[in-house]
This record gives sequence, structure tokens and C-alpha cells, in this order.
Amino acid sequence: MKVGFIGLGHMGSAMALNLLKAGHEVTVYNRSAAKARPLASQGARVAGSIAEACRGDAVMTMLANDEAVASVVEGPEGILASLGSGALHICSSTISVCLSQRLAQLHARSAQRYVAAPVFGRPEAAAAAQLTIVAAGEPAALETAQAPLAAIGSKVFVLGDAPEQANLVKLSGNFLLASVIESLGESFALTRKGGVDPQRYLEILTSLFNAPAYRIYGALIASGRFEPPAFAAPLGQKDIRLLLAVADRLGVAMPVASVLRDRFLALMAQGGEHLDWSAIGGLAAKDAGLTAS
Amino acid sequence: MKVGFIGLGHMGSAMALNLLKAGHEVTVYNRSAAKARPLASQGARVAGSIAEACRGDAVMTMLANDEAVASVVEGPEGILASLGSGALHICSSTISVCLSQRLAQLHARSAQRYVAAPVFGRPEAAAAAQLTIVAAGEPAALETAQAPLAAIGSKVFVLGDAPEQANLVKLSGNFLLASVIESLGESFALTRKGGVDPQRYLEILTSLFNAPAYRIYGALIASGRFEPPAFAAPLGQKDIRLLLAVADRLGVAMPVASVLRDRFLALMAQGGEHLDWSAIGGLAAKDAGLTAS
Amino acid sequence: MKVGFIGLGHMGSAMALNLLKAGHEVTVYNRSAAKARPLASQGARVAGSIAEACRGDAVMTMLANDEAVASVVEGPEGILASLGSGALHICSSTISVCLSQRLAQLHARSAQRYVAAPVFGRPEAAAAAQLTIVAAGEPAALETAQAPLAAIGSKVFVLGDAPEQANLVKLSGNFLLASVIESLGESFALTRKGGVDPQRYLEILTSLFNAPAYRIYGALIASGRFEPPAFAAPLGQKDIRLLLAVADRLGVAMPVASVLRDRFLALMAQGGEHLDWSAIGGLAAKDAGLTAS
Amino acid sequence: MKVGFIGLGHMGSAMALNLLKAGHEVTVYNRSAAKARPLASQGARVAGSIAEACRGDAVMTMLANDEAVASVVEGPEGILASLGSGALHICSSTISVCLSQRLAQLHARSAQRYVAAPVFGRPEAAAAAQLTIVAAGEPAALETAQAPLAAIGSKVFVLGDAPEQANLVKLSGNFLLASVIESLGESFALTRKGGVDPQRYLEILTSLFNAPAYRIYGALIASGRFEPPAFAAPLGQKDIRLLLAVADRLGVAMPVASVLRDRFLALMAQGGEHLDWSAIGGLAAKDAGLTAS
Repeated sequence: MKVGFIGLGHMGSAMALNLLKAGHEVTVYNRSAAKARPLASQGARVAGSIAEACRGDAVMTMLANDEAVASVVEGPEGILASLGSGALHICSSTISVCLSQRLAQLHARSAQRYVAAPVFGRPEAAAAAQLTIVAAGEPAALETAQAPLAAIGSKVFVLGDAPEQANLVKLSGNFLLASVIESLGESFALTRKGGVDPQRYLEILTSLFNAPAYRIYGALIASGRFEPPAFAAPLGQKDIRLLLAVADRLGVAMPVASVLRDRFLALMAQGGEHLDWSAIGGLAAKDAGLTAS
Repeated sequence: MKVGFIGLGHMGSAMALNLLKAGHEVTVYNRSAAKARPLASQGARVAGSIAEACRGDAVMTMLANDEAVASVVEGPEGILASLGSGALHICSSTISVCLSQRLAQLHARSAQRYVAAPVFGRPEAAAAAQLTIVAAGEPAALETAQAPLAAIGSKVFVLGDAPEQANLVKLSGNFLLASVIESLGESFALTRKGGVDPQRYLEILTSLFNAPAYRIYGALIASGRFEPPAFAAPLGQKDIRLLLAVADRLGVAMPVASVLRDRFLALMAQGGEHLDWSAIGGLAAKDAGLTAS
Repeated sequence: MKVGFIGLGHMGSAMALNLLKAGHEVTVYNRSAAKARPLASQGARVAGSIAEACRGDAVMTMLANDEAVASVVEGPEGILASLGSGALHICSSTISVCLSQRLAQLHARSAQRYVAAPVFGRPEAAAAAQLTIVAAGEPAALETAQAPLAAIGSKVFVLGDAPEQANLVKLSGNFLLASVIESLGESFALTRKGGVDPQRYLEILTSLFNAPAYRIYGALIASGRFEPPAFAAPLGQKDIRLLLAVADRLGVAMPVASVLRDRFLALMAQGGEHLDWSAIGGLAAKDAGLTAS
Repeated sequence: MKVGFIGLGHMGSAMALNLLKAGHEVTVYNRSAAKARPLASQGARVAGSIAEACRGDAVMTMLANDEAVASVVEGPEGILASLGSGALHICSSTISVCLSQRLAQLHARSAQRYVAAPVFGRPEAAAAAQLTIVAAGEPAALETAQAPLAAIGSKVFVLGDAPEQANLVKLSGNFLLASVIESLGESFALTRKGGVDPQRYLEILTSLFNAPAYRIYGALIASGRFEPPAFAAPLGQKDIRLLLAVADRLGVAMPVASVLRDRFLALMAQGGEHLDWSAIGGLAAKDAGLTAS
């Protein structure tokens, strides 16, 4: 399939490479062109503009936030203006439910198709084509999306025809992860102040909760090392912000999400922009008067 | 080894049976004697008093709470008065850090030994001798405890010589489980109000969090069925109460634990005594105006 | 002074009347014209369009929210397009800090002046010209605003030249009021469940906290009567939403504000749209299993 | 009336002096005798033991906490053992609801009478005999208490015959005060980070909330000076602890009280033992990255 790919960060580059490996004809675009070079050497065509990346059957976007997605979709040179009639936009970025709804409307008006297909997984999973994908959109659009999504992930959950529900599920998943980080942070602070060795505690809890989230975040909190970031704190904060925004609109009180909001605010105010988002898991210890372990 | 066993609820009965199966000479005691009968038919000796259960090398207690443990330890017929010099009390109940410290002192004064060995696992795990055990106490006491603990669990984590640290770890573990329940409750309420089918959501999240806690509690919350209880809500409430008590004493603020406290209070005030503790995971939906799914 | 007045709700009508009484030449405008009639009989000129209300030295707006203010400011017939060069917009609505900043920029570009002058007080205080006003803007603009503001309020606090700071103070004031309501709600639930008569409790607490907020909201909570609304719950919810938005932008964690957010969400989800905002003060009792008093 | 007085801290000394001034025959006792001297010079008899202070019609206690009260009540030399049949214990300390219930039972068994009469007011109010008192107990006991209470306070609210209800109201009152401190702390942090001058903000808010709590605590927070303590942070923490304990027993979720609990824990863990309890009002600013003002 002829696929455009916009957004070549850690995640996007790995995803685009897997599209190439699966035999798709891929045209990549990135605002700063340097990031496109490694893919060019792997057989990707490099587009000089968004419009050039929109000449295939589908264009996929993997960008940091609502603003970045809106900026490539709208405008005289944007996806809406450039994508052919009947062609498909697969949006894999973690964006707001609101923007996803708006994209669905805008693409429909332009006789284009739209699938929201946010992904779960860290850069390693993206590189290994092991992402978990939640996709939603019109059946025909989902059918077209099937091949490129199969190339980048190991599991694709299809949700139904309301694209924004995929984004809602993605936000809720990041909320669950952040909740794990926070409860681990409180738990480590308590046991450490009670004299339990953090590494020993880590062994026990990962035996009880034998899931990657507990192993990965438990290890970071036990060691107190939150740099370099695998998923940066400001991105985590953004996701909790988007979650609370949709919770507000849907009318759902989420007290743990509010705790997370406050943790991210405190982390940022104290200089945590450059840390991994799991650094909120260090704040309970700090409040408890414990120094870095 | 000659072992006494006090407390024959769902957990205790299964544990005592596994001691028998492993070849130990077991004398069981329970306040209401009827519960001892099935074990008698499996070869256990049935004690008519606490004192009779204290005539071996060790006595193990598996009781509901601090009050129950204190009531079998103290008094003229209690464990302290009955257990031989150098003999061992293995306390597997989930009790307060405070009481565990006091038991350590009382046993030391009576020239007895004491190991705190709380267990993780539901009745099925107890039946299968698959409990995870966290044990702490003096090295000699831990050595004696090794054989009986190996008979009831599949993993024994030894923590060190401060028995109360094992209880602290146990309480923190139940806190982590309750946090999972609460965050799942918020997450299901949000996605359900946003139109996502709860069973479909359950499939996705258990793919992302492939751990028993998410599968078990996710399924209960998705279906909204919290009866019959596997772990009753008042017991869960008690554990969060004990957690907050030790957090207060150690000086650790735990905002998520406070959310859990409030959830249990609301659940009880609204008639939830007979439900599983995961029923707190239904309160976010209720607050959101959703009726039982 | 020739003053236009847009927005004739309970508050706005009372404020416009006081402008008339103070001798100002007032032209009023309201989307639904019926509300203008009583003022016409008191000497106000009734405008048929926003533009007509913008022909004086100043135009004052008293509207429900950001959307309403934006809708009268923008557009080919709006205030920006109609107000004369050097004329003044006094915005007394409780709006977001963001919108206030934007209004300042837009008016500056149109060579108009702008003062943010939100007001504190319920309709009775507005009728008695006893409002407390917090005003901010350029010194020259504030000077022009002085006479009309003196006509509607008994105290005018001038903050400085950044208009949005007045809005920030207004939102923080409503946050303090809502905090009083919430803490009273928790306090009444506790004492009532402990057997203390709510009316007796009300007497004691208003003796300790002899301020209108405690008297007014205490009486409503003690009696459990939240209808008819003096300040409707959706407006209170909106203010906490705007507060949290600016707290997010400024980087300030406000845990009590998060509690309020959750209370308003639960109140709305359970059918509280038509109640007074103090109805959040009834939720602690409800959670505690108490029926309406 | 012949009255004993036990507990001569800042509050107790002032109260005992007012009893003397009102013409009562007062025998004072304090663990460290030095504090009794100033009262001796004003005509008080100084007791060498608790028992000596129990020989009159009534004995009044004003002590720091449950432990202190229990220590003077129990034991072979305590109030229970020493107070005459039909004589009265007026307990003005801020103690737990639980202890107050127990004191009622113990005194009843000893044929003594008991009134719980906690007081509201800072040392200045105690000195001026301007305390607000909430009293509860059997009618006959309350009648005897009337004269001494009238001597130390300006208002006495009589609640009924369950003494512990007076303690419940006292705890709820301190909760309301602490809630004011916390919401002011959040509010000052927000407005200060938004550029509003704290002193100017203080003027505005004390105009809106013209009550002593707002003036006193607002001024402390605006200036960031929490030393010397008028009411020490550990005492405030104790009161919130007692409040949450009774809320737990009565089954009332109090989310704002939980926020306060966490604030006090963080304050103590960071070295705040010697500060005024209003220092929790400085934590929001600290979390927001603001340095001391």
C-alpha cells in the first residue's frame, strides 16, 4: 500500500521502518528533515511537504500533541487540503477526545476517511513491531487501516465506529499506568521509612504484580533514577490533563486522576520537565522527608 | 514438626491441611469447633483449648484482625502463657505494625520466639499451597519457621529481623491491590460513560496489564457483581485503616490511600458490608450517575 | 457618563439600575429584549443591537460565561467592531483568565480601552449597590471606570495594570466560598451522624465563624434545602473549572479545588443542575448514608 | 465554689485566673510546679498532688491530649480515685470522642459527675474570659458547671446529655479552621504565582471574609511567618487525627480532612514541629515552586 508517514520521533521512526519492512511503499515527512534520513537509507521516499506525504492511499500521523496534529491537518498545505477523496488518515498520536471528534467531522466533510489508532508501548516495543493498538472508525476505513496497523503492532483491538472512543481508551490506559506509578511511589516511601530495603521490596512486589508496569516503574522508583526520560513528564502531564478534560465533559469524578494532576503540577513546578513521567513516583518520598535513595 | 494451628477460616483451613500433607504433626484449634472436623478426618489432632495447640515446636495463627490475635495471645489460657520456652509463634494474620511490635516484645519476655509471616493469595492459592509469604524475625526463629512456611506457600521472602516489617509489606501490598481496584473503577466509569463496552474494555486492559489483579478485579467491575465476597469489604477497610495508622506514625502522606479510605467509608455507609472489597470499584460509576451494568 | 450595559440577568439588571440612579445616561442591551423593559421605565434607553450600546464613553458587560462574553465582543456587530476609539469596555463577568488576557490584546489592537472588574456579591448586594469590586487595567482606563464602578459597588479594590489579575482574584474568591461550603458539608455530616442537632450546630458554628458565608451556607446545609438557586450549581462548577485551568497554566497544585471539582461532577451527574451551588455541601451526608434532613 | 484546676499551660493558667477573679476558691495543680506560682500570688491554693486538687465541688482539667488527661484521671492518685461522690469533673481539653465516652462511664461508675466542656479561642481570648464553650453532660452536672464556665467564657453552648458530642463539635470546629488555612494557602499560592501582591490580596479577601480566621491566618500566610506558634502544628495534627478517627467510627468520608492529614504529615516530615499549625498554609506555595515570601 502507498502510505505517507508524518512525525518521525522515537516512536514514529520505528513505526515507519516497520511499514517499510512489511513491504509498504512509504513516504515520510518530518518538520526537521534530518530525522527522515535514516529511513531514506532503508527505502523510504522523503517528502518535502505534508502534501507530498498525502498522495497515497493513506497517511499516518504520530505526533506529540493536539497542537502538532492540528498544525499538520489544517492550513492550505495540510492533510485536509491534500489527501485524496476516499483516502485515509490514521491518527496514532495520543490526542484529546475532542480533537479526534473534530478530525472525524473535518475528514467526513472532505470526503476523506479517518481512523483513530493510538498505540500502547514504549520505543522498544515500537521497534519490535510489538505495539498494542486500539483502533476505531467506519468499517471501510478500518479495513483499509488493517494492513498498515498489522505492520506496526502485534495486537489490534477494534472498538467500533466512533473514532474518539479509541482515544478515550488510550487516555484511560495512560491513567492506569500513572496510577500504578503513584501508588508505587506511596508504597515505596512508606516501606522505606519503615526500614524495608527498597531493592528487597521491589523483588517482593514484582513477584506479586508480575506485569511490566510494576517491574519497570518499580525499578525506577526503587533506585530514584528518573533520567533520561523514556516518556517525558510533560507528556504524561498532558495525558492526565486530556483525561480530566474528557472526564469533565462526560461527568465522571476521578479522585485518583486529581491526585495525579497535582503530582505533575508539583513535579513541573520543582523543575521536573526533563525527567521521566515516573518521577511523580518520587514525590511521596520527598514529602516524607526522605532524601533521594 | 509438631505444629499447632489456630484460626480455621477459609485461609487457615487450607493452610493447616497443607501442613498435614507435608507430613507435619498438626493440632488445630478454632473457637467454633465445627470447623476443625474436616481437618480431623485428614489426620489433624483437634485441641479443646488454645493451650493444647501450644504444646509443639511452633504454633501458627491465621485470624481476622488485631482483636482476634490479641485475644488468643493474651490471658491465662493464651499462647503467651502456654507456649514452651524457645517455642515459636508464627503469626500469618494481617495485623497492625503496632501489634506485631508488641507481640515481638511479649514473646521475647516469655523466652518464646516470634516470626511475622503474613501471606498473599486468595483461598484458591492457599488450597494449592501457592501463597506468597513475607517473613521476618530473628534468624533462629526464621530457621524453625522455614519448614512449615514451605508447606503452605510457593515463595517465601525473608525480610530481616524486625518482624513488623513483614506486616508493613503486607499492608502495602493490599494497598497496591486496592489502588488497582480504585483506578480500574474510575477507568471503567469513564470509558463506559463514553460509550465503550465494558467487556471489550476489559479485554484491552487485561492485554495491557496482564496480571491477576487486573484480570480478577477488572472482570468484577465490568460485570458489576461484587457478591459473594472472596475478600470481604470490611477486611479491606481494616487493612487501609492499619496502613494509614502506620503511615501516620512513620510520617508518610499517602493521598491515594486517603481516597481509598473515603471509598470504603462510603461503601460501608451505603450498605456494602456483605460485598467483596472490590465493590469500591463500583463507586465511581455510581457517582457518575451510571446504574449497575 | 454615557454608558452602555449588556447582560440584564439578576445581577446585571440591578447594576444597570444603579448606574441610572447615579445619574449616568444608560443604554441597555439584552439578547432577549423583554428583560430591558423594567429598565426602560426607569429611564434607560433600550438598544436594538450590541452596536447601539457601544456609542457612549464606556460599555459594561455582565454575562454568564466566556462564550457569552466572546459572542458579544467578536463578530461584525460586536463590541470590538462598534466601540469608539479610546472608549472603554468594563467587563464584570466572571470569565477565564485566558479570555481576559485575550480581550486586553484585542481592545488594545482596536485602540480601545479595557478594564476587568468582576464583582463579589449576591443579587441583594447588587440591588443595594453594595458589591465588592476588584478592578485592573491601565491607569487611564481605571480612571474612566471609577465613576460607573462607584455607582454599583461599595468597595472598589484596584489591583494594577494586568486586567487578568482581577479575574484571577475573582476565581480565587469563589474557590474560597466553595471551600467553605464543602468543609461545612463534611462537618455537618459528621456531627449529624454523631447525634448533634444540625440547627444547634449551626448556632455554634456561626458564633465561631461570624461571616456571611458561614451563616448563609450553614443554614442551607443544615436544612438541606438547595432550591431555588441563588447561584446555580452549573455556574459554580464553571468557576472551579476556570480556576483549575489557570492553576494548571500557572503550575499550582490545589488539592481542595480538586475535591470541589469532583463534588460538582457528582452533583451534576446525579441531577443537580437546577440546585444552588451549595448543594455540593449535601454530598458528604449522602455519602455517609444520611437521608435528607 | 471550691474548684480544682489541673493543667496550667497558656490556656489553663488564664482560665484558672479568671475563676479566681470570679470569686471561686481555686486549688491549682500542674506537673511542673513552677507554673503554679503566678496563680498562688493571685490567691490560688497550690496542690502538691492531683488528689489535693480534687477536694472541692469540681475539678477542671485543661491538658494537651488524651494521654495527659488519662494520666491524671487514672491511677491510685488520680481524679477517679480522689474526687468525692457527687463531685464534678469538667474536662475542657480537646480530647478524642472515644476518651470522652470512656470518662463518662468511669465517672458514672465512681458516682462522680462529668461534663465535657471544650473551649474555642486562642490564649488572648482565654485571658479576656472571652472563650466560646461547648458543654454537654447530665442536666445536674451541667448546672453545677454553669458558674465556673461562666467565669472563663463569654458564651456557653449547652448541647445535651451526651458529653462526647461536645468533643465532636470541638474537633469539627478545628477542622473548619484548618480548612480555612488550607484553602487560603492554595489561594495565596495561586494568586501570588499569577502576579498578585499577597498583601493586596489579603486586604481584598478579608473584606470578603470579615472573620477572625481569615484575618489572622491570611496575615500569617501572606507574610510566610509561622513562628512563634500560637497553636503548635503537632496539636493541630493531633486534632485532625482525632477527627478522622471519629469520622471512621461514625462512617463519614471527609475528603478535605484527608487533604489536611496529608498536609500535616508533610509539614512534620519536613521539620515543622515548632511552627504554628497555619504553616500547612505555606505548603501549596512550596509545591508550586515559590520561595518563602
